[in-house]
Amino acid sequence: MNYLERRIKKEGKIIGDDILNVAGFLNQQVDVKLMQKIGKDFAMYFKDRDITKVVTIEASGIMPAIFVAKELKVPLIVLKKQVSKTLSDNLYMTKVHSFTKDSYYDLVVSKEFLNEKDKVLIIDDFLAAGEASQGALKLIKQAKAEVVGIGIVIEKSFQDGRKKLEDLGIDVYSIARIKKLSKGKIEFV
Amino acid sequence: MNYLERRIKKEGKIIGDDILNVAGFLNQQVDVKLMQKIGKDFAMYFKDRDITKVVTIEASGIMPAIFVAKELKVPLIVLKKQVSKTLSDNLYMTKVHSFTKDSYYDLVVSKEFLNEKDKVLIIDDFLAAGEASQGALKLIKQAKAEVVGIGIVIEKSFQDGRKKLEDLGIDVYSIARIKKLSKGKIEFV
Repeated sequence: MNYLERRIKKEGKIIGDDILNVAGFLNQQVDVKLMQKIGKDFAMYFKDRDITKVVTIEASGIMPAIFVAKELKVPLIVLKKQVSKTLSDNLYMTKVHSFTKDSYYDLVVSKEFLNEKDKVLIIDDFLAAGEASQGALKLIKQAKAEVVGIGIVIEKSFQDGRKKLEDLGIDVYSIARIKKLSKGKIEFV
Repeated sequence: MNYLERRIKKEGKIIGDDILNVAGFLNQQVDVKLMQKIGKDFAMYFKDRDITKVVTIEASGIMPAIFVAKELKVPLIVLKKQVSKTLSDNLYMTKVHSFTKDSYYDLVVSKEFLNEKDKVLIIDDFLAAGEASQGALKLIKQAKAEVVGIGIVIEKSFQDGRKKLEDLGIDVYSIARIKKLSKGKIEFV
């Protein structure tokens, strides 16, 4: 187990069979030192790929992503979620399904902030079915930018998000990979 | 003019009479170096007040707040916005009116993360009518924690948010204070 897996094992709370609550150090009460360590971890893995921008999805993705952007010395682009909005000429937009909330939202970014010269690293806090990551990919594709990889803080490896992304030829690097969650126990890959 | 006011003057876009778009460096495309500077600025102003936690409101408040928490070496607590949700025993909750979106949302935080021993610094990106800040104050009051101050990145001083907070005896420190926005021009206090 690495530093994050140990922390999850120690302080994460397992609710039911597939919900992991990490609000105590990752989502709601944020251990900033841990976030810095995670940021350095991603930056180390993805260095030397000429990344021009780090992209994340609001809100919880911001915490790890801002430290990756700091390490790589590039801007952070925050993709916005909005429940319903009229189309705008100046936005890239795609619809994303949220399994957690059983609803759809629009993921948007201003056309000003991504273009065909960009090499983008996507960072997010969770990967499960991969809906959010695929939404981010669609926006980046609309902008004709290149995706150099996806960094995930916690991957639920028992769902198919990683497979879908790898099938698209994308390098997915997850810090903690959960193989199984059941009866209050957690196993890592 | 200070560093932030110069940046706003140079790169902010004024839409209509009272909308300032700072998406190019603050909200959507984030200049991480600027955020670090802002974080240090707040930490310097509010140091020596025995702060135990920095509190912010998702999503854009996270960017400056995480660097304040880093400097002060305390956890960051992220208050969550949710459109509608059943009441839970384990949450502090209050309703907040959003003028920008002309709607209401619930602001929530788990009871685990704030208590009567906490001395809290609230950080947010904007202060206008002060609805979000007052929502945060209500949650912190429910937790019987103490508010030691509020740090704001951009204050619209032509609205009454600051007055409402000062009337409650709170020390409000804003880095950029806008006196007037009109006809494409901006004036600072």
